[in-house]
Amino acid sequence: MEHPRIGVMADVMGEAMPYIQKYQGKTIVVKYGGSAMASATLKAAVMSDLLLLALVGIRVVLVHGGGPEIDSQLTRIGKQSQFVNGLRVTDAETMEVVQQMLAGKVNKDLVALLHGKGLGLCGLDAGMLTCEKQTEVPGLGFVGEVQAVDTTVLEFALGAGFIPVIATIGADANGTAYNINADTAACKIAIALKATKLVSLTDVAGLLRNKDDESSLIVDAELGEVEQLIASGIVAGGMIPKVQGCVECLQQGVQEAAIIDGRLPHSILLEIFSDKGSGTLFYTK
Amino acid sequence: MEHPRIGVMADVMGEAMPYIQKYQGKTIVVKYGGSAMASATLKAAVMSDLLLLALVGIRVVLVHGGGPEIDSQLTRIGKQSQFVNGLRVTDAETMEVVQQMLAGKVNKDLVALLHGKGLGLCGLDAGMLTCEKQTEVPGLGFVGEVQAVDTTVLEFALGAGFIPVIATIGADANGTAYNINADTAACKIAIALKATKLVSLTDVAGLLRNKDDESSLIVDAELGEVEQLIASGIVAGGMIPKVQGCVECLQQGVQEAAIIDGRLPHSILLEIFSDKGSGTLFYTK
Amino acid sequence: MEHPRIGVMADVMGEAMPYIQKYQGKTIVVKYGGSAMASATLKAAVMSDLLLLALVGIRVVLVHGGGPEIDSQLTRIGKQSQFVNGLRVTDAETMEVVQQMLAGKVNKDLVALLHGKGLGLCGLDAGMLTCEKQTEVPGLGFVGEVQAVDTTVLEFALGAGFIPVIATIGADANGTAYNINADTAACKIAIALKATKLVSLTDVAGLLRNKDDESSLIVDAELGEVEQLIASGIVAGGMIPKVQGCVECLQQGVQEAAIIDGRLPHSILLEIFSDKGSGTLFYTK
Amino acid sequence: MEHPRIGVMADVMGEAMPYIQKYQGKTIVVKYGGSAMASATLKAAVMSDLLLLALVGIRVVLVHGGGPEIDSQLTRIGKQSQFVNGLRVTDAETMEVVQQMLAGKVNKDLVALLHGKGLGLCGLDAGMLTCEKQTEVPGLGFVGEVQAVDTTVLEFALGAGFIPVIATIGADANGTAYNINADTAACKIAIALKATKLVSLTDVAGLLRNKDDESSLIVDAELGEVEQLIASGIVAGGMIPKVQGCVECLQQGVQEAAIIDGRLPHSILLEIFSDKGSGTLFYTK
Amino acid sequence: MEHPRIGVMADVMGEAMPYIQKYQGKTIVVKYGGSAMASATLKAAVMSDLLLLALVGIRVVLVHGGGPEIDSQLTRIGKQSQFVNGLRVTDAETMEVVQQMLAGKVNKDLVALLHGKGLGLCGLDAGMLTCEKQTEVPGLGFVGEVQAVDTTVLEFALGAGFIPVIATIGADANGTAYNINADTAACKIAIALKATKLVSLTDVAGLLRNKDDESSLIVDAELGEVEQLIASGIVAGGMIPKVQGCVECLQQGVQEAAIIDGRLPHSILLEIFSDKGSGTLFYTK
Amino acid sequence: MEHPRIGVMADVMGEAMPYIQKYQGKTIVVKYGGSAMASATLKAAVMSDLLLLALVGIRVVLVHGGGPEIDSQLTRIGKQSQFVNGLRVTDAETMEVVQQMLAGKVNKDLVALLHGKGLGLCGLDAGMLTCEKQTEVPGLGFVGEVQAVDTTVLEFALGAGFIPVIATIGADANGTAYNINADTAACKIAIALKATKLVSLTDVAGLLRNKDDESSLIVDAELGEVEQLIASGIVAGGMIPKVQGCVECLQQGVQEAAIIDGRLPHSILLEIFSDKGSGTLFYTK
Repeated sequence: MEHPRIGVMADVMGEAMPYIQKYQGKTIVVKYGGSAMASATLKAAVMSDLLLLALVGIRVVLVHGGGPEIDSQLTRIGKQSQFVNGLRVTDAETMEVVQQMLAGKVNKDLVALLHGKGLGLCGLDAGMLTCEKQTEVPGLGFVGEVQAVDTTVLEFALGAGFIPVIATIGADANGTAYNINADTAACKIAIALKATKLVSLTDVAGLLRNKDDESSLIVDAELGEVEQLIASGIVAGGMIPKVQGCVECLQQGVQEAAIIDGRLPHSILLEIFSDKGSGTLFYTK
Repeated sequence: MEHPRIGVMADVMGEAMPYIQKYQGKTIVVKYGGSAMASATLKAAVMSDLLLLALVGIRVVLVHGGGPEIDSQLTRIGKQSQFVNGLRVTDAETMEVVQQMLAGKVNKDLVALLHGKGLGLCGLDAGMLTCEKQTEVPGLGFVGEVQAVDTTVLEFALGAGFIPVIATIGADANGTAYNINADTAACKIAIALKATKLVSLTDVAGLLRNKDDESSLIVDAELGEVEQLIASGIVAGGMIPKVQGCVECLQQGVQEAAIIDGRLPHSILLEIFSDKGSGTLFYTK
Repeated sequence: MEHPRIGVMADVMGEAMPYIQKYQGKTIVVKYGGSAMASATLKAAVMSDLLLLALVGIRVVLVHGGGPEIDSQLTRIGKQSQFVNGLRVTDAETMEVVQQMLAGKVNKDLVALLHGKGLGLCGLDAGMLTCEKQTEVPGLGFVGEVQAVDTTVLEFALGAGFIPVIATIGADANGTAYNINADTAACKIAIALKATKLVSLTDVAGLLRNKDDESSLIVDAELGEVEQLIASGIVAGGMIPKVQGCVECLQQGVQEAAIIDGRLPHSILLEIFSDKGSGTLFYTK
Repeated sequence: MEHPRIGVMADVMGEAMPYIQKYQGKTIVVKYGGSAMASATLKAAVMSDLLLLALVGIRVVLVHGGGPEIDSQLTRIGKQSQFVNGLRVTDAETMEVVQQMLAGKVNKDLVALLHGKGLGLCGLDAGMLTCEKQTEVPGLGFVGEVQAVDTTVLEFALGAGFIPVIATIGADANGTAYNINADTAACKIAIALKATKLVSLTDVAGLLRNKDDESSLIVDAELGEVEQLIASGIVAGGMIPKVQGCVECLQQGVQEAAIIDGRLPHSILLEIFSDKGSGTLFYTK
Repeated sequence: MEHPRIGVMADVMGEAMPYIQKYQGKTIVVKYGGSAMASATLKAAVMSDLLLLALVGIRVVLVHGGGPEIDSQLTRIGKQSQFVNGLRVTDAETMEVVQQMLAGKVNKDLVALLHGKGLGLCGLDAGMLTCEKQTEVPGLGFVGEVQAVDTTVLEFALGAGFIPVIATIGADANGTAYNINADTAACKIAIALKATKLVSLTDVAGLLRNKDDESSLIVDAELGEVEQLIASGIVAGGMIPKVQGCVECLQQGVQEAAIIDGRLPHSILLEIFSDKGSGTLFYTK
Repeated sequence: MEHPRIGVMADVMGEAMPYIQKYQGKTIVVKYGGSAMASATLKAAVMSDLLLLALVGIRVVLVHGGGPEIDSQLTRIGKQSQFVNGLRVTDAETMEVVQQMLAGKVNKDLVALLHGKGLGLCGLDAGMLTCEKQTEVPGLGFVGEVQAVDTTVLEFALGAGFIPVIATIGADANGTAYNINADTAACKIAIALKATKLVSLTDVAGLLRNKDDESSLIVDAELGEVEQLIASGIVAGGMIPKVQGCVECLQQGVQEAAIIDGRLPHSILLEIFSDKGSGTLFYTK
């Protein structure tokens, strides 16, 4: 005579309980970007999932990119996007557009979906991200590398139950703004916050042994194995910085780093609230 | 291509979210007693449900009875249970048994099922329940009425994430122990804690217009209506003190009081996490 | 034989001391907008003055406009600015530009000038500004009116020594973003924060009896007098909402409200650190 | 012309002052058990002494046994007490009785004598005592060994001025309850709380060189000497676990451990408030 | 076989317990002055009594006079003490001596007797006593009347377990120092601290109906009765300001005010730790 | 059209800003003594400078001497000052005068000039300075050496925004008061407070290579160089203890120690608020 729906609820919540206990009071940094943000419906669903994680006491930080929105705005004002080694050539005019679109458009749109629980920030705010101009690749303009992360405002936000939403723009010592790669920034932020986990919501299934065969998904790999995978050349292209970010996190104390498929509804819940997980999990023993 | 189970989890949790938000940080006093405690399986399931409520940030207080266990122990030592007007005649020897069984056996058995999250107390502890000998019914012996509730230890326990589990024995000014009716004590504790809700887990379906017809269940009633129901004589027998406790709670600031069917698995989740609820809900506008 | 420069410093600081004592630990909301923001040099100087105020322990909140930057961006994408009764007609496309330019460009540019001490926010963040669509003037589109101010994140920022920098975009209950008049928002924020003073940095000398004669400047006026000035018609045009904002602040407990000349270097220091002040001061007895 | 009684009070309190200063804010764990609890008068007097210690700011923890009460209840229900190597054979039925009598009867009776200042707990509460089934002596049933002490609830109680009263029942990882030797538990609790002193209230005069001659009392012994005493065989029988508990405490940072004569009125005051002490004191240099 | 001394200690402390409970965490202001300070032995004994009160958790504030020491220093430098209506004529030179002797000699000598638990202050410190020159009696020079008491430093001292020792010198708005009557200052301080009791340690037996007959001691009087006593003329001479101070305290919320005999050893313990008390007690119902 | 005075203020404050940022929240111990205290005007100006430093958030501690005032009082009572190796011979009668003049006169006069922001203390208060009789030079009487500094009351005062003003009298374990050299005491206090800087306000220009030629001023010296200077004999006479105090501070973690010319108005502002500084600065790399 049990109410059927509540039986399901009890079962499902019962299943989630050990995972809630595992992550409650812990910090999870979620990198969200690129095509995974393209669908408005999916974007709203992801924000709803993050609200749920926050509601059960997990400290969630959202770091986002926004390449497509920047591209389309550049196009609109008659300027062409240029890339060297996958990094955007960022002259002063482009930097203005980056700032407008990342910190003004993408960031605040995500915040609006968090219904009063989001706190939209960029690295300039409260001196959060101090950077220097990157010097590896010449001619990139205002592209920066993170030197230091000041977590003051993040600790407040997390302590007060907010979800910080971060556009990865930083300033150098003179207050000049730079564009920063979101994967790298997410990694540095996770380390600075002594996060328990970094989750990268991408538009691929995870790390594949054969990039054309989703059935070759690598489900999990211990830190040592990942280093071998990189050495073996299986990790390639745009995956390199993502995987390197994961590796650096693990080396610096973050316990888990996952690259998951943001195209699947609720893949982040699957990753956090089940043993099955979703995509590829890197971990330290 | 969504993982089916996680879709259910997302749906179910999405449904639960507004209720979690409604009760998070709020206090719910659960009265649990009598036959509803008879099944070991059901008892473990109820404790598991309470753990879930606590895990999502609801402040849960459990007040329990234990009549059957007292009866069986009295029988064991060759003493017969006696009642006047539904109240146990409690001579000194019976009071010893009440204390052993309520505070030692039933209380700690429930605590053990809460896996380190329960804090088993009786009203003697930290001066929680001060009472006086009841004088309405003569010859009852050590039966007391609550005069004051000191919430110091309860506030600590709730603040630290524990679930206080309370055996309703109190002391008068001389430190003499008295047996207190658990329904009444739960009501007084809910008021003292400025609880949002009192939930009484019973072995009936709720308040029935016709006590022999479960289809005559009164689903909800505003404070004024309840007073009429009592006047009309529909509330009778053992239901009278339960309903009166609910009325007193509502009059003293508790917003909702529910009498639900503890025989149904997860009825407390149904009551807290859905609009449907379970049993009979009394409320103030 | 005294070092001459330090003598000046001692004198100047000695003069400032009673004003520092007066405002230390108090909240000052600074509205900064329009043409007063046009000069990059002046803008940097104003930010430097605010840093100085914060450094000596005054709690400074900066609320900014950004009309010119919005206009120029609309022009750039081939869209014409339209106004009704001085309020911008804000269709969906315009709202996107408002959000990009206010929250992304103007806001973060000001934050960059505060060298790690600024915290750039809009009303969407942490549920700070809840608004409703304004209904007074039909056809304005996404123009909102403040219904509630949640000061949680502002109190944190001020307590931690940061200067909150606020772009006046708010959300309604559905999370839809609206453009809000910055003068009105500054007033509501000052009231919510129980600020001691509201300072409006404008591009006029203050409130003039004769709008074409700066020598007719009204140096100060008590609340009752201001109400008479409005009734007499001396306050006109764009000055009406500014003065009304000041009046509402005074009526709601803010002690002083000043309209000062943002074109003069350091006019805010003159207003805060001298009896002379700058522009027009409204006050309650 | 001095009031004679107050002269005595001044003298006595003057004598006590250096000892109050020595122990104020420090933690003293008192083990109380066996025959020393037999006299109701003496029991009330001991509780009164503990209240006095707490009143002057000493953090007092009471750990009790209750063998005689368990024996008499077993007899009552027609079950015989059995011991192997001084440890009670504890089958499931016996464990029920242990729990009822220790946690329900003895514990709450002591709490009642503390007039609202006692907080009666067992090791199941708040996950205080985690244990494993002992495996040294086969066939003992539900007899456990302490694996970990969680002091959360104890720290709260002491901080709020309560005296925790502890029945030494613990749970293993599955929530199964075990009977734990009270001497051993008191020792583990003292170590976990970084107590300054462990006092064992017994029914003997202290440690005697010749067990039949009270004049052979060993007044004090440094840690090294105690180890020699054990090796020499002077410590024998039921004294072995008590003395071993003291030795472990001293090795783990507790500064003093005393075995005193609980049959003498106020022997605990004599031990704490005088240089003379009472019984045998073990100490580290 | 009880140790006799500890039996006495237990009895005496048992007697003191209800009084310790009554005053623990409460504030008692002790006025100590004049001839009662003459004997070095007695002075040390009084300080020892105050240390005992502080040790058991009573918040003790000591306000002292020092007339005899001022007189003797004036004599030493060849200046004669002059009084009008019992108030010292205080020219600039006398004020210097007052300051040296009260704040430098008497105050710090008392502090030295409190062995690191005293905090010697005068009303100039931390802006504690703001006063104005008294204008009732002309020609008195630097004699002030208390206008305001800032309890910041007193609250810190009491919270940290120190005994503030106060020399009653205050400053007016210009920082000019004034001599203040110690009885009046003690009264104002007791009111400002919301003290429970003011105790005046004098060199008389208390308030006498017949000033030449100690057997005519008025043991206690309720507020209304005291007002009658003053009206009846029984209170006369130097007793007037003392009794008026007591009356003002009672009118402003202090519950008890006692004038006791400082010549009797431990009279303050008798007053605090017994029902008998010592001297005359004024109280409100 | 800028207001000229406010332009100066903005410039001057702009200059001071980096220095305020450098020292804000840091502790500076100022030693003030001897002839530098002779001029009442200068003394008031120095106190005003210290108030300014405190107002901008620097934690200022003032340690003072008072030799001249002690000398003149000794003369007044017909007693001659005597010195051995520059240390005052302090018999019991002299010690009384030292205590009166340092703790009563000089200390409270400085406190009065701090207008409610000073907290006048000596080392007896709150057990701040524990000392032992010095034994190096025989026959000096009550001259002590600091053994320990208890910073409890200093931390409170600094935390609450007060300026502690310290007369360097301490007590030994028996509560006997001793006179302590103010330079040495300031050094010990700076170390105990983990101060950032010790500033000694003297009546010389600083450390001179040629003591008769102010143009030979040593502007700054690193710790190693100072040790060489002492070895070389350039530091001589009364400068030896001052310089040794500076060296000990630097060795124990204080970052800077300056000996500056207290005869110049505002020399302390010059030292703190400019790179130029004033007098001689010792520092660690």
